[in-house]
Amino acid sequence: VLESPPHPNPADEALAEAILGPPCRAQRRALAKAITLLESSREEHQARGDALLARLLPRAGASFRLGISGIPGAGKSTFIEALGLFLLERGHRVAVLAVDPSSVRSGGSILGDKTRMERLSSAPGAFIRPSASAGVLGGVAERTREALLACEAAGYDVVLVETVGVGQSETAVAGMTDMFVLLHLPNSGDDLQAIKRGAVELADLVVVSKADLDPAGADRARLQIASAQRLLGSQATTDAAPSDAPVWRPHVVLTSALRGTGIETFWSAVEEFRTFQVASGRVEARRRAQAESWMWDRIQAELSAEFEHNPTVAAALPGLLVQVRAGHLPPSTAARQLLGLRASQR
Amino acid sequence: VLESPPHPNPADEALAEAILGPPCRAQRRALAKAITLLESSREEHQARGDALLARLLPRAGASFRLGISGIPGAGKSTFIEALGLFLLERGHRVAVLAVDPSSVRSGGSILGDKTRMERLSSAPGAFIRPSASAGVLGGVAERTREALLACEAAGYDVVLVETVGVGQSETAVAGMTDMFVLLHLPNSGDDLQAIKRGAVELADLVVVSKADLDPAGADRARLQIASAQRLLGSQATTDAAPSDAPVWRPHVVLTSALRGTGIETFWSAVEEFRTFQVASGRVEARRRAQAESWMWDRIQAELSAEFEHNPTVAAALPGLLVQVRAGHLPPSTAARQLLGLRASQR
Repeated sequence: VLESPPHPNPADEALAEAILGPPCRAQRRALAKAITLLESSREEHQARGDALLARLLPRAGASFRLGISGIPGAGKSTFIEALGLFLLERGHRVAVLAVDPSSVRSGGSILGDKTRMERLSSAPGAFIRPSASAGVLGGVAERTREALLACEAAGYDVVLVETVGVGQSETAVAGMTDMFVLLHLPNSGDDLQAIKRGAVELADLVVVSKADLDPAGADRARLQIASAQRLLGSQATTDAAPSDAPVWRPHVVLTSALRGTGIETFWSAVEEFRTFQVASGRVEARRRAQAESWMWDRIQAELSAEFEHNPTVAAALPGLLVQVRAGHLPPSTAARQLLGLRASQR
Repeated sequence: VLESPPHPNPADEALAEAILGPPCRAQRRALAKAITLLESSREEHQARGDALLARLLPRAGASFRLGISGIPGAGKSTFIEALGLFLLERGHRVAVLAVDPSSVRSGGSILGDKTRMERLSSAPGAFIRPSASAGVLGGVAERTREALLACEAAGYDVVLVETVGVGQSETAVAGMTDMFVLLHLPNSGDDLQAIKRGAVELADLVVVSKADLDPAGADRARLQIASAQRLLGSQATTDAAPSDAPVWRPHVVLTSALRGTGIETFWSAVEEFRTFQVASGRVEARRRAQAESWMWDRIQAELSAEFEHNPTVAAALPGLLVQVRAGHLPPSTAARQLLGLRASQR
């Protein structure tokens, strides 16, 4: 029943070959162009993007995918730059991507300003890409997910996905990475906000950043987060795991990226987590579950869009909404009527 | 384009007339029968239910809808019985409904055991109905919402909707009531759980129940919740309100339903909230927004069900899922393929 995706056209095939080739300036240019194609919402570009992605996919999957979140001001850029440089020194190739919910509305995006990470962005072993900025959050996140696969095909073995700690973007990033890290300021209001957002629960590791500014506050935050983690459990590490498997206890690490302290401790904790995940078979389980729920999310978003753009539905909707809002028509009846209209038109 | 719903058949018309008639035993029987019809998932019953509901709707809407949640053991039954009897004494007619996510799986349901509220259930001014127990949570909640309209048409002027503080059921109940109340035990683990679930944010009023068992703990809980509310804001009261409108500051009330203390204080706080909501125009705004999002929820649920039951999709799905889970096919490509299959079949 299913056709395999068509082969890339000659120009895209050249892109694919450059991406799959050796690391060099031309590879980075090809990667950037490929991601631009994957980000396009034009239908013909989507078909080309699908074909290109199918070509790259056999070489994807070999990186460690690390999600990093925190509210504005938590020190994400400074932290990511320090971490990226640390990883380059150790011989890794590092890609930095971003999912920015504000880019959906404003067209602006985190990482848009590369000067934020001046040293990292000029290093030949690093690839930095700002957040896509078209469409709804689901679309932006999907494009980042595809960009991540392209980076892997190009041989980047650590992919950092940055997001801002607001709205649903943290769930989206936790849903595309192997490990989700929350940067946290040393004050207790931030604690409650993070618990409320579900970020503490999603986090495999919490970093209390800027610990040098308020050492006592940082220590209090560490204790509070650790206690919240014990009470709430950690969703990210218990999903898709056999029930008798040992459970990862999320750590809390204090850093001061400004002073450059804590990055080594942080990376040791990351490696401990990776070892644990590999040993317990959770890496693959997590990726399988992520891929599946990603597919359903895309389907649901498309079904809703299709429905709202159906001409008969679109014509009847305003009148029905007036009746529903006024309480003259039960919402369930209105839903059935709208669904029926669409069916009768088919 | 739209047809108005058909008139009820003669038997259902008799039900409608009994419901709209004077309060008596026959009215309660008719109401129970009508709710059973509304709960049915058979297609012919749905059409009859739509017609019946259309007949009742002009007389619905005049009650105060009060949602009550809390984890198992928080003392919901005792609290609702005490509150119900208090309201009956004051001349109100009280209906008690329930949304129980566990009934979806088990077929059991909260309020199924009427002996839990022995005195209230034998009072002629009260109507108690256990949670519907068929289908998914969205369906159970929708049936409760329709039952609520039927109770209003029968002249019940206070409708209490009980739910259990787990999963999405609190959001569903907050989405069908004018005020959402959270029952809370006097211990701090419960605090974090409630913040995590989003219940503190949804709550217009928090009741620390069983305060007699641990007065010091109850007082600590009151302070902690009040501080969390200040930090997190209250979603339920700020939605759909003009941005310059005054903001309701959720209260925390201590009760001991066992000793019968606190119910009067509780009801004063409820009346203060009602006065505030009416004065600020939020009652109608909240109901309008609820009705609209209810309609969209139903549409989305139906679109997903339709998609999964499409024969071509259902046939291709298992094979595609294997490829997606194995990482051989990007989830976005699989989503597009499945959507395309369905389109080509139409």
